[in-house]
Amino acid sequence: MKKLNIGILGATGMVGQRFIGCLENHPYFQIGCLAASERSAGKTYKEAAKWHLSGDIPDDVAKMKVAEIDPKIIDEYDLDLVFSSIPASIARDVEGAFAQQIPVFSNTKTYRMDDDVPLVIAEVNPEQYDLIPIQRENRGWTGYIVTNGNCSTIGLVLPLKPIMDEFGLEWVNVTTMQALSGAGYDGVSSMAIVDNVIPFIGGEEDKLEIETVKMLGKLEGGKVKNADIDIFASCNRVQSMDGHLKSVFVGTTEDFDEEDVIAVFRKFRGLPQEAKLPTAPNPPIIVREEEDRPQPRLDRDAGNGMAITVGRIRRKCERKLKFTCLSHNTIRGAAGASVLNAELAKYMKLL
Amino acid sequence: MKKLNIGILGATGMVGQRFIGCLENHPYFQIGCLAASERSAGKTYKEAAKWHLSGDIPDDVAKMKVAEIDPKIIDEYDLDLVFSSIPASIARDVEGAFAQQIPVFSNTKTYRMDDDVPLVIAEVNPEQYDLIPIQRENRGWTGYIVTNGNCSTIGLVLPLKPIMDEFGLEWVNVTTMQALSGAGYDGVSSMAIVDNVIPFIGGEEDKLEIETVKMLGKLEGGKVKNADIDIFASCNRVQSMDGHLKSVFVGTTEDFDEEDVIAVFRKFRGLPQEAKLPTAPNPPIIVREEEDRPQPRLDRDAGNGMAITVGRIRRKCERKLKFTCLSHNTIRGAAGASVLNAELAKYMKLL
Amino acid sequence: MKKLNIGILGATGMVGQRFIGCLENHPYFQIGCLAASERSAGKTYKEAAKWHLSGDIPDDVAKMKVAEIDPKIIDEYDLDLVFSSIPASIARDVEGAFAQQIPVFSNTKTYRMDDDVPLVIAEVNPEQYDLIPIQRENRGWTGYIVTNGNCSTIGLVLPLKPIMDEFGLEWVNVTTMQALSGAGYDGVSSMAIVDNVIPFIGGEEDKLEIETVKMLGKLEGGKVKNADIDIFASCNRVQSMDGHLKSVFVGTTEDFDEEDVIAVFRKFRGLPQEAKLPTAPNPPIIVREEEDRPQPRLDRDAGNGMAITVGRIRRKCERKLKFTCLSHNTIRGAAGASVLNAELAKYMKLL
Amino acid sequence: MKKLNIGILGATGMVGQRFIGCLENHPYFQIGCLAASERSAGKTYKEAAKWHLSGDIPDDVAKMKVAEIDPKIIDEYDLDLVFSSIPASIARDVEGAFAQQIPVFSNTKTYRMDDDVPLVIAEVNPEQYDLIPIQRENRGWTGYIVTNGNCSTIGLVLPLKPIMDEFGLEWVNVTTMQALSGAGYDGVSSMAIVDNVIPFIGGEEDKLEIETVKMLGKLEGGKVKNADIDIFASCNRVQSMDGHLKSVFVGTTEDFDEEDVIAVFRKFRGLPQEAKLPTAPNPPIIVREEEDRPQPRLDRDAGNGMAITVGRIRRKCERKLKFTCLSHNTIRGAAGASVLNAELAKYMKLL
Repeated sequence: MKKLNIGILGATGMVGQRFIGCLENHPYFQIGCLAASERSAGKTYKEAAKWHLSGDIPDDVAKMKVAEIDPKIIDEYDLDLVFSSIPASIARDVEGAFAQQIPVFSNTKTYRMDDDVPLVIAEVNPEQYDLIPIQRENRGWTGYIVTNGNCSTIGLVLPLKPIMDEFGLEWVNVTTMQALSGAGYDGVSSMAIVDNVIPFIGGEEDKLEIETVKMLGKLEGGKVKNADIDIFASCNRVQSMDGHLKSVFVGTTEDFDEEDVIAVFRKFRGLPQEAKLPTAPNPPIIVREEEDRPQPRLDRDAGNGMAITVGRIRRKCERKLKFTCLSHNTIRGAAGASVLNAELAKYMKLL
Repeated sequence: MKKLNIGILGATGMVGQRFIGCLENHPYFQIGCLAASERSAGKTYKEAAKWHLSGDIPDDVAKMKVAEIDPKIIDEYDLDLVFSSIPASIARDVEGAFAQQIPVFSNTKTYRMDDDVPLVIAEVNPEQYDLIPIQRENRGWTGYIVTNGNCSTIGLVLPLKPIMDEFGLEWVNVTTMQALSGAGYDGVSSMAIVDNVIPFIGGEEDKLEIETVKMLGKLEGGKVKNADIDIFASCNRVQSMDGHLKSVFVGTTEDFDEEDVIAVFRKFRGLPQEAKLPTAPNPPIIVREEEDRPQPRLDRDAGNGMAITVGRIRRKCERKLKFTCLSHNTIRGAAGASVLNAELAKYMKLL
Repeated sequence: MKKLNIGILGATGMVGQRFIGCLENHPYFQIGCLAASERSAGKTYKEAAKWHLSGDIPDDVAKMKVAEIDPKIIDEYDLDLVFSSIPASIARDVEGAFAQQIPVFSNTKTYRMDDDVPLVIAEVNPEQYDLIPIQRENRGWTGYIVTNGNCSTIGLVLPLKPIMDEFGLEWVNVTTMQALSGAGYDGVSSMAIVDNVIPFIGGEEDKLEIETVKMLGKLEGGKVKNADIDIFASCNRVQSMDGHLKSVFVGTTEDFDEEDVIAVFRKFRGLPQEAKLPTAPNPPIIVREEEDRPQPRLDRDAGNGMAITVGRIRRKCERKLKFTCLSHNTIRGAAGASVLNAELAKYMKLL
Repeated sequence: MKKLNIGILGATGMVGQRFIGCLENHPYFQIGCLAASERSAGKTYKEAAKWHLSGDIPDDVAKMKVAEIDPKIIDEYDLDLVFSSIPASIARDVEGAFAQQIPVFSNTKTYRMDDDVPLVIAEVNPEQYDLIPIQRENRGWTGYIVTNGNCSTIGLVLPLKPIMDEFGLEWVNVTTMQALSGAGYDGVSSMAIVDNVIPFIGGEEDKLEIETVKMLGKLEGGKVKNADIDIFASCNRVQSMDGHLKSVFVGTTEDFDEEDVIAVFRKFRGLPQEAKLPTAPNPPIIVREEEDRPQPRLDRDAGNGMAITVGRIRRKCERKLKFTCLSHNTIRGAAGASVLNAELAKYMKLL
């Protein structure tokens, strides 16, 4: 099978680097073009990128010349699709211009809440791919845009989905303890975080509150009807490198006992698992029963960074549940989520 | 005025050291005896204690000889009262033996939930001192035991009190991000916490859930009737040295707007403020309106470590409030709380 | 005595904030003007500065209007002298323009190595103030520039001075473990330093090697003759907030024993101590004999951040000495050093 | 080829866990027995060990029953050799008892400086295996003991070896910045190290000074004649998880230029590389020319944790060299070093 030729928009950043990691030896996709800002264009990737991951840049990637982000790279590099993690400030124009011609799988928030744009977690709501024909018609595009959620939203919605399906969801109070990499390499000064916690992440609580209900919503009449769940979020930055930890309080419609909840998490599978997509973790949700897990450093790489780890499941009183969950923010919460969405698109004949 | 002569039981530990800090140049109390385990007894304090606070041990304290914890020190050192931060495993016997003769102000959890023992935050529920005559009668003691709450409970209950009084409290979901010093100097290994968060602290969630309702309860017929509030807690250890941060979701009985809440926090004063007790912070609750406060490193020392700092106050929907609060866990949450309780006891002629 | 009216150039930065701390209630100096870049000018200091120190901005400072850095503030605010911590890139012009009219005490590296500019640690080489008349004549200035050394150099030279005087110095191999604040608030990304050490600080090793020999040099014929000592430095960034720790290997001319070295450090006093200058630490060098001191968090604030703490003194073989020393990099290594230099200038009738 | 059946003495500790990692799927060795203290004996490994490495315990290891450390396990489990990382306090008796029967490859310091015991880095001094017949004769053992050096010594001696061979070595001044794992999981309290550096590690400087000269010595007349190099060491604990960083100043006999040094490091190979031993890194020394490398987090895993990374090579003046080097302390500096020594023993027909 000939691999699809992909481009990475924003290839030198933190998420761009994770895309490179997720796509190494990928069975469907090969990296055809690394695109970044004008400042990087023309340099080799090794010169342009300050590589933050452990180990060296894969050799073949290191030597690639970085292109400037511009739709003309579609023809120049014969691209079949692009992955994007460009800044929100330029995404509306740039991602739109690419989507006129080819599919765009985007990490950037800009299009997420648009009515005709799928906001997809592959295991949770693949049905939002049905918005693609509508999007194409609305916008006159040959390609399309599929977005994945904010890094902390994805890790919350995945465990909420089976709870919702089984017991119903009325409200969620969630406190996040988010890793440094979520802010980008230079996002958090060391002096800000040593011996400290920062109880604020710009825009994050809003994203958690609005993206969650779209993701858990239903497609009705060509539109997503948001789920009727009251989400209240408090976001904090802590001193871990990767892995967003969340303490989640949930009000359910039906009562449950703790063993049921564990069983529901464990049996959960989505379309990616059924379809055995290359990067689909199986199981997607891992339940740990030790009293002190999940922990970011120990659990973030579970399922190659694609699995959610859940622990500390407890019922306080009727219909009131608490658990703690963890997900790798730049893999499951960003690059890996996009790649899985693209794999799913291929499975659904959208690529 | 002659100062009261006090003893510190558990003087070499983390909280013991804070007692020494809180009592330096205290107008009511002077340190008459530093008592610790057999291992330390007979050494000078400087030899016996590994001092963890910045700066050196106060000179006069450094030279004091450490006594072994034993009720005979009451006579030997002519003690008027003791402050205790001894291990829970020995507290029932030891604190009881001291209370037979003199007042004990204790940080240890052992007696907190006993029916006839006050569990007091000086600003919140000084009326629980009315249990003292009952306690004395029940137990045949000349002295008595007054306890203060767990370090994280105190910092939660203080801001809940004015909210309860003004708007009513139905439920609280609280996620703590607790400092390392809460576990004692050797409590958390560095390898456990670097690049990590630990989503578990043994016994802590229970304490938050049961102590809070006793503290916010009412004294009726010589007993505390617990407040009817559903508290659900999730406790986490993060990499800050001091200062427990809490993200608090609250369901109120009456609706409110955010400005009301800020005003209610700001105007709150308790008996210690009215009585101008020496270590009473004024105001006891500080509201910060910057979007990224309170932060442990920047705010824990507010009011000499005795004030609670609150921020990120937000109303999500009807009767649903969120805020973040911070308190110094070894001062306001431990040694300082006991000292303030003793000051209050003196004001109330109980010393 | 009327206080001298001072300006702070670069008032909003890390060192600027320390200047404000060092000058609060100073007996000689009062803050007349806070000057910063155009971006800050016109705002109150509270609006302009992101305050990084614990506690709040002193009230009177918080309300001051920030001026733009420009020599016209000399007249406008009636300034007697300025303290400077402006970027090196603009210092030659800007500090020069101020020095035409009034004395400048500078933290910036630009003028340090100029032949006619004193590079002074008040305890070590006050004789370099004799360069001032030469500087004035050379440059036609009414004011003058006095510089203090790089933050890590100061903490090295202070303990080297008594060793040199007593035993002679032939070579020094020094490895620094420098605090985050040395790079400025945004200088080190948290992702760069968590679970890590960075074995490089731009320009720092050169500064240690060239400034040290000028500071320890002799004034001969109106010029500083550099000391003939071979300095070799290796600079590392570690995860402490404040306090540069140095591991120092020294080759001496005369042999010694460890007790001699301790005694030499302990008896060392400089002109600031003799003159009892307001911020002079006494003693300037503190020797700690515990095997695990000095430590940045425990010892950096010794002498209000102005004392050097030395420990781990050991003789390996003939004329070969090792010790570890610590100094507060933004107080003794920056703002405090400048303030002490200005106090010395006043004592020497240069103000 | 039938694999040799090995035992791990001290299997539940930090180094024991690394042994398990290093021996997974090893071509020569299979884990026949996991031995630990009485407290662990009888439990499954999963129950007995608090696993600190990322990922889960290998399945087959998790289920193994832990034996008590006792020479009778040699017969019981039919062991061909053991790897040891037991406490020094019991090593003389225990390792000796095992060595009476079978080879022991030990991380423990106890036997290292004995005249007839090889202290070996496989690339540096395999000739010390010639001490084995002498050791057997002296002690009447059927087995033998081979030791590897202290974790920080190994990472120092490896890069010193080619420098010594090419330019001669006169003196070394070395400052270490050592990772937390070097002290064992509970060795360093979090409160000790947050916002701090500890300039002391018990016994470590001595080990660096005495082990280095034995390792770089020559075998003459059945004894190791120590190298005549003056080593002076200063050891510090910093907040990295794994990877000891060292800043090294070296006095050579011959002069050199920096390019020569780089070339000498790069071309260095030892017997393990020639013999293509399974875990021998190739090259054993990696030179990085970026100005800010090596860094613990980025470079410790080079060569599967078995390579030394060197950088910041600089000549200050005639015959005076400086470089920074990094090695993984629990792999190259402990478990991996022992395994490589055992592979070498097999190659040399000593197994």
